[in-house]
Amino acid sequence: MDEIITLDYGSGGKKTARLIEELLVPAFRNSVLEALGDGALLDGAERLAFSTDSFVVDPIFFPGGDIGKLSVCGTVNDLAVCGAEPKYLSLSFILEEGLPLADLRRIVESIRAQAEKAGVSIVTGDTKVVEKGRGDKLYINTAGIGFVRFPGLSPRNIRPGDAVLVSGTVGDHGTAVMLARSGMMQGELRSDCAALNGLCRRILETGAAVRVLRDPTRGGVATTLNEFVEGTALGVVIREEAVPVRPQVRAACDMLGLEPLYCANEGKLLAVVAAEDAGRVLEAMRETGEGRDAAVIGEVSEAYPGRLVMETAFGGRRILQKLTGAQLPRIC
Amino acid sequence: MDEIITLDYGSGGKKTARLIEELLVPAFRNSVLEALGDGALLDGAERLAFSTDSFVVDPIFFPGGDIGKLSVCGTVNDLAVCGAEPKYLSLSFILEEGLPLADLRRIVESIRAQAEKAGVSIVTGDTKVVEKGRGDKLYINTAGIGFVRFPGLSPRNIRPGDAVLVSGTVGDHGTAVMLARSGMMQGELRSDCAALNGLCRRILETGAAVRVLRDPTRGGVATTLNEFVEGTALGVVIREEAVPVRPQVRAACDMLGLEPLYCANEGKLLAVVAAEDAGRVLEAMRETGEGRDAAVIGEVSEAYPGRLVMETAFGGRRILQKLTGAQLPRIC
Repeated sequence: MDEIITLDYGSGGKKTARLIEELLVPAFRNSVLEALGDGALLDGAERLAFSTDSFVVDPIFFPGGDIGKLSVCGTVNDLAVCGAEPKYLSLSFILEEGLPLADLRRIVESIRAQAEKAGVSIVTGDTKVVEKGRGDKLYINTAGIGFVRFPGLSPRNIRPGDAVLVSGTVGDHGTAVMLARSGMMQGELRSDCAALNGLCRRILETGAAVRVLRDPTRGGVATTLNEFVEGTALGVVIREEAVPVRPQVRAACDMLGLEPLYCANEGKLLAVVAAEDAGRVLEAMRETGEGRDAAVIGEVSEAYPGRLVMETAFGGRRILQKLTGAQLPRIC
Repeated sequence: MDEIITLDYGSGGKKTARLIEELLVPAFRNSVLEALGDGALLDGAERLAFSTDSFVVDPIFFPGGDIGKLSVCGTVNDLAVCGAEPKYLSLSFILEEGLPLADLRRIVESIRAQAEKAGVSIVTGDTKVVEKGRGDKLYINTAGIGFVRFPGLSPRNIRPGDAVLVSGTVGDHGTAVMLARSGMMQGELRSDCAALNGLCRRILETGAAVRVLRDPTRGGVATTLNEFVEGTALGVVIREEAVPVRPQVRAACDMLGLEPLYCANEGKLLAVVAAEDAGRVLEAMRETGEGRDAAVIGEVSEAYPGRLVMETAFGGRRILQKLTGAQLPRIC
């Protein structure tokens, strides 16, 4: 690792992974942490899921959402992809001195509305204030507790031939925030920020052989799919033209020098399911508002161990690595 | 409320209370949140306690501790005073670009050591990085889950004649951090930062009629005692000379223009217990390392409804209100 923390360490890509794997997991070694999912599965009287995220998105208001909505959806989604029903959230603010109360009120209202929509209660919290220039308007942390209804989801379950599905268009959140930050025209580009617990429940209630679910946030679809197979004997092959991308997102990515498959999503789900169940999972996804643009984008293969490979429209094949560097700092 | 957030809103005193009571609790209205303890008591298959704190202390290293140790103790203590056995912590960093990795390593090691000592596991986490000048070295959030072993602790249980105990000297943390920040000589002044779950367990296992436990952090002993009785028909009377204060803390407070009773503590406990049980609770406290300087400092009285009153050594009586203004910004 470098001797100084750079923005890359917050990218959700390779450097973030090194920080976690080389510094944090060894320090706090325990079987729960080593499972390394988005949330922790705890042994209690009942199986609990526990997850946390800090939110530092810039700007705090963007088309399709704000830091408050994001802070609810992010933690709800981390619990939901563990097969848990999210139930309780904590809410902690770090406010920068000088923040207009009107902004805080607007964000609190957004949190309230999104928590109600997702069916979770904010039950505890904290507020700190730092001097001007020691923060940036406000940062939010949420932690969440859910009750596990569908245990056993894990990348370890993935088998050759499994289908890889995405619940909708990719890159909407990352590009919407980057455009909002730059002050450029945004057209109809909006963050996809949404709670996915309803979508996850719908999929899991089909009884399909679902191997793993994950919300591809920082680092995007390409980084999450890499995480599924790295260090294993399996790879993932996706077809470029099967990946749903809005034309506006593609245009924005071209302009900003980004790649939609590495852009953060905040309301999308990746699912790996048994090939024979792909049809009914796709159908279940499409019956929900969040999954109406769902697609099968590829499959698990033994041909490229530990790799993510993209077949291009022209028959070429590209290896897609995990995100390197800080493509999109402060995206969530 | 003011139209702009000022440092006062992070003081733990009156303005923090207004922000919570006027903006946050009404927004997220639910029965768990309205109980307004340091942690939330949840209805699950088993009673769970859930709590969170963000830590923004400046400087990040101070005599007796650092932001990492503080982030473990703070959340462990909030759970312990709910009568819960703290079990799982989440850990989330907001790192400022440019932070030396050596500092982060040292803090991670401090978190590891303190978590081990307190008997809790770090099971999930998150890391974000913000640009230079948008943070201050690092901020930490922890959230914690505990299993409630001694239900029913609440300020609502307080009765006239109850004894008020403190587990040791007051003001050590606040003054140690303020001196460290100012760069002044510190002598032997050290933060009292410590996990109190062992002390709480010891007290509760005596079987004494314990009404409420609370760790008097931001806002200090005076603010916490005010919170116990405000809006009720009861008051608290404390005797100035009964409150243990180290001479160095008193000297530092005189120099800094502070009052020990309003200074933050990070390893002290306030307990309100039935008068007839005060002796054995005091004894139990003194048998632990954290409680060796414990003292009975006052009692609950009907004479001053909703008020905290201090009897001075010269027979005078002073009303001590909740902390007003930001006496000690960024103290935890």
